[in-house]
Amino acid sequence: MSHNSFGHLFRVTTFGESHGASIGCVVDGCPPGIPLSEADIQRDLDRRRPGQSRFTTQRREPDRVKILSGVFSDDRITTEVTTGTPIALLIENEDQRSKDYDDIRDAYRPGHADVAYDLKYGFRDYRGGGRSSARETAMRVAAGAIARKVVPGLKVRGALVQMGALRIDYDRWDWEEVERNAFFAPDAEAASRFVEELDAVRKRGSSLGAVIEVVAEGVPPGLGAPIYGKLDADIAAALMSINAVKGVEVGEGFNAASLSGEENADEMRAGNDGITFLSNRAGGILGGISTGQPVVARFAVKPTSSILSPRRTVDRFGVEREIATKGRHDPCVGIRAVPVGEAMLACVIADHYLRQRAQVGEQPRWPF
Amino acid sequence: MSHNSFGHLFRVTTFGESHGASIGCVVDGCPPGIPLSEADIQRDLDRRRPGQSRFTTQRREPDRVKILSGVFSDDRITTEVTTGTPIALLIENEDQRSKDYDDIRDAYRPGHADVAYDLKYGFRDYRGGGRSSARETAMRVAAGAIARKVVPGLKVRGALVQMGALRIDYDRWDWEEVERNAFFAPDAEAASRFVEELDAVRKRGSSLGAVIEVVAEGVPPGLGAPIYGKLDADIAAALMSINAVKGVEVGEGFNAASLSGEENADEMRAGNDGITFLSNRAGGILGGISTGQPVVARFAVKPTSSILSPRRTVDRFGVEREIATKGRHDPCVGIRAVPVGEAMLACVIADHYLRQRAQVGEQPRWPF
Amino acid sequence: MSHNSFGHLFRVTTFGESHGASIGCVVDGCPPGIPLSEADIQRDLDRRRPGQSRFTTQRREPDRVKILSGVFSDDRITTEVTTGTPIALLIENEDQRSKDYDDIRDAYRPGHADVAYDLKYGFRDYRGGGRSSARETAMRVAAGAIARKVVPGLKVRGALVQMGALRIDYDRWDWEEVERNAFFAPDAEAASRFVEELDAVRKRGSSLGAVIEVVAEGVPPGLGAPIYGKLDADIAAALMSINAVKGVEVGEGFNAASLSGEENADEMRAGNDGITFLSNRAGGILGGISTGQPVVARFAVKPTSSILSPRRTVDRFGVEREIATKGRHDPCVGIRAVPVGEAMLACVIADHYLRQRAQVGEQPRWPF
Amino acid sequence: MSHNSFGHLFRVTTFGESHGASIGCVVDGCPPGIPLSEADIQRDLDRRRPGQSRFTTQRREPDRVKILSGVFSDDRITTEVTTGTPIALLIENEDQRSKDYDDIRDAYRPGHADVAYDLKYGFRDYRGGGRSSARETAMRVAAGAIARKVVPGLKVRGALVQMGALRIDYDRWDWEEVERNAFFAPDAEAASRFVEELDAVRKRGSSLGAVIEVVAEGVPPGLGAPIYGKLDADIAAALMSINAVKGVEVGEGFNAASLSGEENADEMRAGNDGITFLSNRAGGILGGISTGQPVVARFAVKPTSSILSPRRTVDRFGVEREIATKGRHDPCVGIRAVPVGEAMLACVIADHYLRQRAQVGEQPRWPF
Repeated sequence: MSHNSFGHLFRVTTFGESHGASIGCVVDGCPPGIPLSEADIQRDLDRRRPGQSRFTTQRREPDRVKILSGVFSDDRITTEVTTGTPIALLIENEDQRSKDYDDIRDAYRPGHADVAYDLKYGFRDYRGGGRSSARETAMRVAAGAIARKVVPGLKVRGALVQMGALRIDYDRWDWEEVERNAFFAPDAEAASRFVEELDAVRKRGSSLGAVIEVVAEGVPPGLGAPIYGKLDADIAAALMSINAVKGVEVGEGFNAASLSGEENADEMRAGNDGITFLSNRAGGILGGISTGQPVVARFAVKPTSSILSPRRTVDRFGVEREIATKGRHDPCVGIRAVPVGEAMLACVIADHYLRQRAQVGEQPRWPF
Repeated sequence: MSHNSFGHLFRVTTFGESHGASIGCVVDGCPPGIPLSEADIQRDLDRRRPGQSRFTTQRREPDRVKILSGVFSDDRITTEVTTGTPIALLIENEDQRSKDYDDIRDAYRPGHADVAYDLKYGFRDYRGGGRSSARETAMRVAAGAIARKVVPGLKVRGALVQMGALRIDYDRWDWEEVERNAFFAPDAEAASRFVEELDAVRKRGSSLGAVIEVVAEGVPPGLGAPIYGKLDADIAAALMSINAVKGVEVGEGFNAASLSGEENADEMRAGNDGITFLSNRAGGILGGISTGQPVVARFAVKPTSSILSPRRTVDRFGVEREIATKGRHDPCVGIRAVPVGEAMLACVIADHYLRQRAQVGEQPRWPF
Repeated sequence: MSHNSFGHLFRVTTFGESHGASIGCVVDGCPPGIPLSEADIQRDLDRRRPGQSRFTTQRREPDRVKILSGVFSDDRITTEVTTGTPIALLIENEDQRSKDYDDIRDAYRPGHADVAYDLKYGFRDYRGGGRSSARETAMRVAAGAIARKVVPGLKVRGALVQMGALRIDYDRWDWEEVERNAFFAPDAEAASRFVEELDAVRKRGSSLGAVIEVVAEGVPPGLGAPIYGKLDADIAAALMSINAVKGVEVGEGFNAASLSGEENADEMRAGNDGITFLSNRAGGILGGISTGQPVVARFAVKPTSSILSPRRTVDRFGVEREIATKGRHDPCVGIRAVPVGEAMLACVIADHYLRQRAQVGEQPRWPF
Repeated sequence: MSHNSFGHLFRVTTFGESHGASIGCVVDGCPPGIPLSEADIQRDLDRRRPGQSRFTTQRREPDRVKILSGVFSDDRITTEVTTGTPIALLIENEDQRSKDYDDIRDAYRPGHADVAYDLKYGFRDYRGGGRSSARETAMRVAAGAIARKVVPGLKVRGALVQMGALRIDYDRWDWEEVERNAFFAPDAEAASRFVEELDAVRKRGSSLGAVIEVVAEGVPPGLGAPIYGKLDADIAAALMSINAVKGVEVGEGFNAASLSGEENADEMRAGNDGITFLSNRAGGILGGISTGQPVVARFAVKPTSSILSPRRTVDRFGVEREIATKGRHDPCVGIRAVPVGEAMLACVIADHYLRQRAQVGEQPRWPF
């Protein structure tokens, strides 16, 4: 992936800082003729938007997206459709408190990118985290909303499956529950335990990590490529590129290390409509290529580094200090990472869908 | 990553099938003037070579590498050095038993890429797994041997930290032990338990997975890029692209989800030579950018799918069958994945080292 | 080059249609710490701006650029500098006459991209040419203004050397004259002939082509790469990608075909400060790599296809028609292509400057 | 284009020096199921091979190509077909005279890349020109042979249309004549004048340049992309990247500058099978996108820089010298550039064919 772009054919480039004029992105390579309105994108953005419960930052960003280019309608093509040219999206930054950044302009918050930016560039835009702010992920969600429309029949959903040390019960998985609680948890019982836990954490000024699972159904078989263009390699990069993510796994993931060869390999039987797999430990991907089973990935989000407890650090002049982060922060950034993870998965699949169509056409053929 | 290439500036392209004439790679973008001999590369290849213990496949490939281009010496430049032009490497395939592939030419081995290749391309080269064979990873190791020389002071090492359900004890970690046992395990006591376990598994025709940890020391701070060019995103893709890998994590990885914000964020103090971090839960990367701490990543390898026990499957004509894989296979492919993981990490770091030098020069500077 | 981006490390992505909300671009990979204000960019944009003489379209676009991201200043860094993160630029479209596009919504103007867009995408945004409008070139000029600042000591200038069949006299070349006449011509005498010629052409509703020469001084030696990354290959693509360009040449260009080997090859002598070339027929590039001599390129712009004379064509339904283009058009689009050509040359050089710094560092070194 | 690769989806990477063990290339992204034998490639290579007349270098390279990977056949798929994995090709270097390179190891031949390589890398492989040798173009021809098979119905041919100051007569154009004379000239009468001219030039130890025209028929409409992914931009880069090329033009090219808008724009009429253009001044490309007309491009090759006449130069120590190039050299490298130009055009078209199939599918569709 290059610096601020990802995708090979469905290519997303984002820009913007937390406290600049606006954030935005350019989606290049989208097929023409796909119906696309601002409302389509806004719907997904609203799921990620902060301030929807007491468990996410109280920063109030309406996050109203504008499509600047790449769509068209007139009196004959009466719904806005993509034209095949770059789709630029813009969200203006609004709730930028003109606050005092003296605390962090020179000091490095532990767990934050502050020190890394200074080491890399020699200085940094410290206002609200600048480019390293999770605000950038709004544009990922926006691009993902377009990606979802590129692949016919694709459905990408996500859920929070672990918060701190608490895990959901997979036997209680209910996709409809996901949109009912403040955590995108698929298990109502777990969600109520999360409430308690996160309230306690929030009150003592601390934070928690999380694990998110994303699932793509309707992924055509054959996406991916043998070696470095593996579908799961690109998924790994896409999910790991989300702020605060420290781990990514596909299918059984790390658990696969503990399985025997018999347990791990998914057996096959003849189905009505081709092959039926008897299990999906592979997470829908074999040898880097989709099999038609649901693609399943999980990623781990570290606990928010902005916490109230004072922590030891240094500043850019090498002076030792203590720092505590006041202000509006998510006690568990993993929650809002759910729609972001979905979006990244959708983008990777859309990209590989186009790549497969390029190399093999609509349908592979036995050569003779 | 494109199909068969990875890296942006230090770019590796591999080719070749398990049972073709040869496998090879082209390394483009390597800086000029770096001493490089075939022996430098062979040393790393020998660590990955099969047949060195009863725990790896008995296929006997000398894996003798030839440098076809990109180096130069004469009576003044008396050691071979890179010229800056593409370095092509070739290994001839030798131990290709002219065996009977009737078993797998049409049937899909569970857990293997067989079915995925047919779904993608319409057919496949089934001899020895064709392009999906782990044999390709020899070229990763070869490219990694070059990458190690690109970054001054870089040291990349790896170790197997889990086999099946057995884990090493981190308190007994000893890098020198790694080269002494057949598992690249850093813990002698664990290694002896691995012997027992894997012997049993091998005898019953089954297989085991593993977790490998790779560590890069001497990584200059500032490598990586804020958003999609994150160092850890590229590491995730690189490691996930290795055959049979199902999960990747950096620093605390999935464990970070269970930590509190206080536990997770690495505090800093002033050191003699800049900043000293009091811990390294971040795995040497903050906000996608290296901090100068060791870069630490782990990846999970699934158990070998080629096992003796008969498994249910179908063939390309949709007929249900059973299949058992005879022949020479690693009972735990994770073992030989250790040098491969090291190589991939080295390649990613070399690539980002060049990318950082491009954008920022040798040293970042405070603007005024 | 990918669809709407160019450059490998200094990477420019543009978006926007002639009659959409705005046009813009994202410049990624720019080094940090470079002073950059909107005024720096505006200066170059104003040279390209229409409506400055009767020889360019009367469309009145103030073309006021806004920097949306990627720069920073505070009370210590008192001048805006680049941060190393993506620089997004935006120009709002203002003078969009709500005119009637009935003439061209279905009919294909000869020489225009209308038919090609329909053949490619199935339909098109016909308002003002949509994405194919030369308006996009404003963003090239804006990106070029940044590129000029990336390479220390770089000076890129351009001039119109031929309009229709009229050529300038190279013996009268005067860079200061370029900014004094309406044609960017370096020869005052030729400029006055151009006035006459173009007035006549304009009055009869026709149009003329042109040849532009662009010259980069202060190009460090060593930029480019041996084979496909040749500096002149990237210059050729960059200039050919400008609207209406049909030919590109470097140094002697097509004339080199008629020279003898003796005439063509530039001899060298020892200079005070390294090598002195006795001529520059190579245009500053040998084997795809800059030599330190000025880089000289020329490109041919076809006559404006939007002309008043009725022309035979068909429409999207296959019906034969005649079409004449009314409205505000440049009688010679080549004039305003001068700053565009400069910008593209500057962008290519900036990109290769970073690429060379990546591979070789600040200075190449004899290996031993 | 990156250093030693070109193409986005149909991607070619070459390696090898004039006097190394071998030269080769990797073609990645080729669709599966395309019949491809070594003979298919050898046919094209033989057209480029030196030593076929007294007008090309007498170096005797059989240039026997081997396919190392990426094809497959068995008793059911009885003809070798591409598998979709990377196709590696290798040609061993054979006729490397162990000659004395003392003349050029330190001295810079005027017009050659010698000085540029030293300025870039600090040193160079001087044996036979190393990487800058035209020998690399054999791999372009080989890759082109594959590209030709990717696009159904594509036919790419080339011809030499100018040698020194002598031009062919377009009215006498005869494609069959091209294979009959030693110059790939489409005009028998011109070819006989070329014999005389080049004999004289060869005898006096000098050299001549040339202009080559390449024509692609059967190019599907819709290839290319609006802005930077223009088909002609990629053609320009591809042709300019050929050794010794100094200019590229499409359709009318530089001549377009002298035409009026009426003359230049190709009118359209309704044809039996869609649109018929009444002329092809555009060279088959409008707005960067193919129209279905033949794609026509020309490129100028400078005279061979290796000449017998002594020329003034310096060496790497800054000492002034004279140099004359003895040995086996083409008096007009333009001749053998004909199949190379064809190959590059074929590669670009194949790449854009896949890119168009990716974005738009097999057929564009009116959105509603």
